[in-house]
Amino acid sequence: MPDIVLLRHGESTTNLANVFTGWTDVDLTPQGVAEAHRAGQLLHKHGFRFDVGYTSYLKRTIKTMDIVLEELDLLWIPVQKTWRLNERFYGALQGQNKAAAEAQYGAGQVLLWRRDPYAHPPAITPADPRYPGHDPRYQHLTDRELPLTENLSETLARVLPFWTETVMPALRQRQKVIVCAHGNSLRALVQYIDKLTDEQVTQLDIVTGVPMVYQLNDNLERVNHYLLTE
Amino acid sequence: MPDIVLLRHGESTTNLANVFTGWTDVDLTPQGVAEAHRAGQLLHKHGFRFDVGYTSYLKRTIKTMDIVLEELDLLWIPVQKTWRLNERFYGALQGQNKAAAEAQYGAGQVLLWRRDPYAHPPAITPADPRYPGHDPRYQHLTDRELPLTENLSETLARVLPFWTETVMPALRQRQKVIVCAHGNSLRALVQYIDKLTDEQVTQLDIVTGVPMVYQLNDNLERVNHYLLTE
Repeated sequence: MPDIVLLRHGESTTNLANVFTGWTDVDLTPQGVAEAHRAGQLLHKHGFRFDVGYTSYLKRTIKTMDIVLEELDLLWIPVQKTWRLNERFYGALQGQNKAAAEAQYGAGQVLLWRRDPYAHPPAITPADPRYPGHDPRYQHLTDRELPLTENLSETLARVLPFWTETVMPALRQRQKVIVCAHGNSLRALVQYIDKLTDEQVTQLDIVTGVPMVYQLNDNLERVNHYLLTE
Repeated sequence: MPDIVLLRHGESTTNLANVFTGWTDVDLTPQGVAEAHRAGQLLHKHGFRFDVGYTSYLKRTIKTMDIVLEELDLLWIPVQKTWRLNERFYGALQGQNKAAAEAQYGAGQVLLWRRDPYAHPPAITPADPRYPGHDPRYQHLTDRELPLTENLSETLARVLPFWTETVMPALRQRQKVIVCAHGNSLRALVQYIDKLTDEQVTQLDIVTGVPMVYQLNDNLERVNHYLLTE
């Protein structure tokens, strides 16, 4: 029965500043670094080992993964990075303080953008400096794949091919997998794995730096899951 | 014309202690971490970018690569780790202080083991705790591939398939490549790229943390090389 561990990166500078981050490539805070060490130490204490790791293209997941693998003395395992695990692309909200956005658009609207799986934040245009098409790391994406804004359902739609084409085959080969990703790319993934309704996913919060252990059956359906907190 | 950068990891705890290290998975010293940052800063200052990185299975190269890529804001590029870039396997000398080895075997014999491309240090047996077959990371190697001791010529023989089957195809696709490896796996590689005689390779020293830039022609022959020191 394959296990998989899902882990949200440690606290980032924009988590701390309460800013919509999305694909902005911000660093971990010292607290975030400490959370990553703690996650690695907990996994080590409970005897977890991994054969492969997956992260997004964003340094807050890559650095969290590196710290966790170092704690496990597993820096040598393959780690694959993919844009598909990136945080939800927050459109014109990216870089904006959440309180400022509430002042501008109203708290109800902002809550809707954050929680309604189908609500789109205001889109950017390709002329916007935040457009991922300007960044060398996304040069291989098609215009269709490059987001201008995303709702959670669209985030899930681009996470899913990576899950089915890369992670599921690894699990079927009995590989032990750790995924380090983001609040919303993990919410999308958990909605899919746990077959959550839109209502349920609205209530779902993923905390930073706490390993989520999923025990799966041979059909890769979840039979148990728990947070590793001590 | 593809460029490639070869980099020896920053100073390790056993470099500092003057111990034969080989496949022992030791950490960087604070000085080694500083060397890695300096290498990354120099590459950044000179406008280097990379599409792919290669390291050994040993943390001193993986951590050096991570630091360099962070300085270049390139943590997101793919990094492939391989046992074939590991340091020369030093047999029964692994873990022994070099001065102690000289006292035991004589300085001339130790120099021969270090410098003669065909001299074998004393072999270990598979019962030895240092035998790589006991380590999960080498479980996929055949008995023939698992070393008991290595001379430099044998190190080259197992580095070479990685060079020809992985690095050369990447260079032919015009990818910009950085390799972070070890004193002797790089000596072997440089002997091959630069077509050095056994006599010449005997004189060759690779310093820690200084990027070696190789400019190659379309046949992947070296047309120029230099050390990036300032």
